[in-house]
Amino acid sequence: MNITLQPIATTTNYRKEVTDDLWGNVITEITLAEHIPTEAFAGIELFSHLEIIFYFDKVPDDTIVYSGRPRGNPAYPLMGIFCQRKKDRPNKLGLCTVQLLAHNGRSITVKGLDAIDGTPILDIKPVFNEFLPKGAIHQPEWVADLMKNYWE
Amino acid sequence: MNITLQPIATTTNYRKEVTDDLWGNVITEITLAEHIPTEAFAGIELFSHLEIIFYFDKVPDDTIVYSGRPRGNPAYPLMGIFCQRKKDRPNKLGLCTVQLLAHNGRSITVKGLDAIDGTPILDIKPVFNEFLPKGAIHQPEWVADLMKNYWE
Repeated sequence: MNITLQPIATTTNYRKEVTDDLWGNVITEITLAEHIPTEAFAGIELFSHLEIIFYFDKVPDDTIVYSGRPRGNPAYPLMGIFCQRKKDRPNKLGLCTVQLLAHNGRSITVKGLDAIDGTPILDIKPVFNEFLPKGAIHQPEWVADLMKNYWE
Repeated sequence: MNITLQPIATTTNYRKEVTDDLWGNVITEITLAEHIPTEAFAGIELFSHLEIIFYFDKVPDDTIVYSGRPRGNPAYPLMGIFCQRKKDRPNKLGLCTVQLLAHNGRSITVKGLDAIDGTPILDIKPVFNEFLPKGAIHQPEWVADLMKNYWE
């Protein structure tokens, strides 16, 4: 079964190279693709946070893995790809919750999107309080170590 | 630009019809597609919550909208599609955070996935505390009203 998607928007920011860390203060403009009417953003400024689904278009097919040590760090355990958020994954989908700073016609400005300049965006959803995780969140110890400079 | 994806897994649960509410106690088994090796789930039981990106495969192309009143309710304001989470959207992508109940080889069991039986899954990501929304969340008043029976 093949599923064919088209980008609904694209990113503009100062991050031109694929690197791992320092995403917290990145400001990104997201502009609608030509085939999406401006009305698709109507009222978006009423939300403080958005979920952005994007496509890691710079990932070559032959770097996709199904398991491995996160970031190749020998101090971390072997984990399946669906227990990691790394880009080299089947379907190359990225997902990040961002703060919405501004809405101006066919563009929005967001903070903290971990996607480089020119990344194809596949969907944008508003964060509802009612969709936040229910119950306490548990994660293995390596996550906090891996993430220590991510949002710097 | 066309992006072609393949489902990495599929759902099994008792929800056979497309309906809006009552998803909170739905238990779903997610089973890896044949082309994904079992190692892709290795260690997933170390996480309590997962983000599931799926494909609303029952949505006909001609029901996709770019704006409208949520659920067609005249009491709600007109909102762009990227200010709503409804299924009739460009690229037909769904996104839900679930609780992981069990892992058994090529299958996981999750609670609270708002997808019917047989839904194609496109990606699974672990919830990291560090990826939760930063700062207070604001949303318009209609959201709480729309969501009042969603997780019953």
